[in-house]
Amino acid sequence: MLKIALAQINLLVGGIQANQIKIIQTAEHARDQLEADIVVFPELTVTGYPPEDLLLRPDFIKQANQSVFDIAHAVQGIDIVIGFPEQSDNSLYNTAAVLRDGEILTQYRKNVLPNFGVFDEQRYFKPDNEICTFSAKGQSIALTICEDIWQLGLVEKNKQAGADLILTLNASPFHAGKIHQREDIVCQQAKGAEIPLVYVNLIGGQDELIFDGASFVANAQGKVIFRAKEFEEQVSVVEFKAGKPIKTICSPLYNEISSEYAALVLGVRDYVYKTGFKGAILGLSGGIDSALVLAIAADALGADQVEAVLMPSKYTQDMSNEDAILQTEALGVKYHTIAIEPAVTAFTGMLSDIFEDTQKDATEENIQARCRGVLLMAMSNKFGKLLLTTGNKSEMSVGYATLYGDMAGGFAPIKDVPKLLVYQLAEYRNTLSAVIPQRVITRPPSAELAPDQIDEDSLPPYSILDPILEMYVEQDRSAEQIQAAGYQMADINRAISLVDRNEYKRRQAPPGIKITPRAFGRDRRYPIASGYKGA
Amino acid sequence: MLKIALAQINLLVGGIQANQIKIIQTAEHARDQLEADIVVFPELTVTGYPPEDLLLRPDFIKQANQSVFDIAHAVQGIDIVIGFPEQSDNSLYNTAAVLRDGEILTQYRKNVLPNFGVFDEQRYFKPDNEICTFSAKGQSIALTICEDIWQLGLVEKNKQAGADLILTLNASPFHAGKIHQREDIVCQQAKGAEIPLVYVNLIGGQDELIFDGASFVANAQGKVIFRAKEFEEQVSVVEFKAGKPIKTICSPLYNEISSEYAALVLGVRDYVYKTGFKGAILGLSGGIDSALVLAIAADALGADQVEAVLMPSKYTQDMSNEDAILQTEALGVKYHTIAIEPAVTAFTGMLSDIFEDTQKDATEENIQARCRGVLLMAMSNKFGKLLLTTGNKSEMSVGYATLYGDMAGGFAPIKDVPKLLVYQLAEYRNTLSAVIPQRVITRPPSAELAPDQIDEDSLPPYSILDPILEMYVEQDRSAEQIQAAGYQMADINRAISLVDRNEYKRRQAPPGIKITPRAFGRDRRYPIASGYKGA
Repeated sequence: MLKIALAQINLLVGGIQANQIKIIQTAEHARDQLEADIVVFPELTVTGYPPEDLLLRPDFIKQANQSVFDIAHAVQGIDIVIGFPEQSDNSLYNTAAVLRDGEILTQYRKNVLPNFGVFDEQRYFKPDNEICTFSAKGQSIALTICEDIWQLGLVEKNKQAGADLILTLNASPFHAGKIHQREDIVCQQAKGAEIPLVYVNLIGGQDELIFDGASFVANAQGKVIFRAKEFEEQVSVVEFKAGKPIKTICSPLYNEISSEYAALVLGVRDYVYKTGFKGAILGLSGGIDSALVLAIAADALGADQVEAVLMPSKYTQDMSNEDAILQTEALGVKYHTIAIEPAVTAFTGMLSDIFEDTQKDATEENIQARCRGVLLMAMSNKFGKLLLTTGNKSEMSVGYATLYGDMAGGFAPIKDVPKLLVYQLAEYRNTLSAVIPQRVITRPPSAELAPDQIDEDSLPPYSILDPILEMYVEQDRSAEQIQAAGYQMADINRAISLVDRNEYKRRQAPPGIKITPRAFGRDRRYPIASGYKGA
Repeated sequence: MLKIALAQINLLVGGIQANQIKIIQTAEHARDQLEADIVVFPELTVTGYPPEDLLLRPDFIKQANQSVFDIAHAVQGIDIVIGFPEQSDNSLYNTAAVLRDGEILTQYRKNVLPNFGVFDEQRYFKPDNEICTFSAKGQSIALTICEDIWQLGLVEKNKQAGADLILTLNASPFHAGKIHQREDIVCQQAKGAEIPLVYVNLIGGQDELIFDGASFVANAQGKVIFRAKEFEEQVSVVEFKAGKPIKTICSPLYNEISSEYAALVLGVRDYVYKTGFKGAILGLSGGIDSALVLAIAADALGADQVEAVLMPSKYTQDMSNEDAILQTEALGVKYHTIAIEPAVTAFTGMLSDIFEDTQKDATEENIQARCRGVLLMAMSNKFGKLLLTTGNKSEMSVGYATLYGDMAGGFAPIKDVPKLLVYQLAEYRNTLSAVIPQRVITRPPSAELAPDQIDEDSLPPYSILDPILEMYVEQDRSAEQIQAAGYQMADINRAISLVDRNEYKRRQAPPGIKITPRAFGRDRRYPIASGYKGA
């Protein structure tokens, strides 16, 4: 019998010392409590993932390499499989090492380096083309790392080299539906090569990325016989008898909506804690976006760590204030109210000479939004709470947001959530407990920066806008292709030209949590000065 | 005799139609006025460089490939060598095509794809390993693209395959001193393989990058026998007799300071024009940073397209206002004065309840800076002028700047200019004509956000800070290595810990012009949530 522990743990990018302590404790737990023969950690365990340009620092690489030796010396009596950036001569490899009896028994260098989407691995690492197996309790065990098993060939090659089972170390980021893609691919590989596969994934939030865990074991028939929880740390053991994994607990999968909500909660929690904040504040408008962000923040950090600020203007409807207060009460969140009129009046007066003979336009709306930004940042600065900004993906796409105004903040939880999904998530959250007043969900969305303003004055209805944006932004479809999917060219052109010309705003937006196949930020790299016109 | 035209032109990323018109006009000019046999354009001519994720759009790639055929049909009677993203089956190549008599005569696919620093070419392109030569007037001519010739081997390989000369299409970004690196490498390659080399570089600003032109021809002895101007468009012809290039005009090289200044001017001009603005505004404080940015902006756009805004507070010294006004007069720039006190007073009052029982801290300083940000953005919005932000690289490094305050703006011209270099550039600019009052250069730098404040209250002197920052940020040196270079550990630790903890500010900073070997922005990709402590 062979017992393999899957160490699905939350690591801190760059925090080699903290990670080392956690790796050692986890390995000891796996050895002593779980009686595991082998413990497998996620990709690039000692550095966290993705370490980005820290990988260019020789001191950082030296620390990471030293850490592997320190871990090997610290824990014996169990095989430890960990990932680290291996410096060898003048090259850096994304490597998995097997530590046994205080030494590095063997190591495997990642063959397939992803360099698309959020991944830049070819910026740092050299690919290798060697496979690697080691022996434990009479079993031949092969190592692979993440992208390796998304390509055909490598699993088969290991099988042909005599491997009895395959371990794979991963840092596979979440987006909605990704878990199914991931299990499908891995199970196909296992079935195709008739070999069991142990898949260990990272868990935790890192800037824009969520690693969702859900580590699993597929048997040689391509069936999942163990699955760890999604979005939680978990160290579990799976037994192999005569080379076959024994079926054990398979944690249920979240559905699409609930997984998105869980990802957002984890993302906020980890960003706040990992950047050293204790709590968060946000502007609560009575609209759906800030309502959802407040619920996420309270779920992530605890209601006592979150504060809401109501900042009404003369355009704010009574129901906005009422609903905002109702929500803070439902969640048990402290709130403050500051009317923005004195500052708006001051700026209007200060600019009156210069703006003489000009027409009112978006400038006056932006001043209101920016007064709110100044207030929120002042409170964030004074009390050390992270300011969460509440814009959604539809707004980010078309630039329906004020730079340094409602876009001000350190983190943008729902930046990758299209407006229609904001509503779905709000409704989902209310099924757990009713915290978002129903009127917030049913009233027409409005920025409340001008009299009787609603979003549809400026934009196509979200039921039309969101699908167009998904096709244009996430799927790279052309205007003609979107038209062929059943949309009006006028709506398409309006949406696309807004997307094209608002890259400058997105470039200055705070980071937010990726939950779709393509988020803004590192995932979508567009020029600002650009002659490309999609419309 | 063979005449080769070097088409050092300014292209618009994504602007395929506009670029096509310019390519055709330039080719016709080379054929008709310069009587050239061949005209050589920069790398990825039809799309501009770098097109970034536009390369993932099938419609964009289709347009770019169509454009090559259109150009071939449009201009005959001259060989046109242009770059484009070549779609072939399911792969994309960074390709140079030779167009002759309305057809693609041959094409070369870039072998070496840079994926470091600002470059992400492996994100988009597949490398090839074939060389390519074509014949013109009895000469065998080989093609290479940019990074290809920074590696040993390819020039030699072409020579061995019988090439008589090598054309290379480039988009090589500027940083101070790069021109010498570039010519040294190319001349070594030419000399080593005993083959002349025609190097055509892009010119122009594109977001954070400056392409500095300075195209040149090296003979088989490794001597530069022609050089085009730096930072300007130029289409020139070089004659080859019996395979040897005939020495002609070599434009002089700028020195380090003057090249940096020229790069900043070009960068501002191209960013403003390419993003569709007509002019720029900025806040003019009487300090050195905004003084330099104003001079750059006036030189880039013309004084009549630039406006300065003075926004004094009670902490602003008289000399600040006096010097600011003196400078606007020297340059002939229009200015406005708006005292920020009414807005600061309004915010102070609005926050007085919430801030009761708290001490004054950076919050109150930030409010002042943010009031200025609101005013400047209001003017930018109302009059359609791009707001230039005036922070330098030293400030960006240590976070000595207010997010949404003095960091507000669409473009940050001196973001990659360390403070000591700001002074040098100001003094250099004054040698052209005295526009920056001497007192601005000699007074101690101050943010003027608190009584009698100077930068050295919070930071080590710039003569110490700047070298530490260069070693840490640009050279990835450790604290110990910096200490070994002669600095005090207290200063080092202070500087490094500020750099480490201010990544969140930099992530929301506007783009600026890269002039050093490593700029912030796409060039330096660091995690925000990070356990790495350089100090």
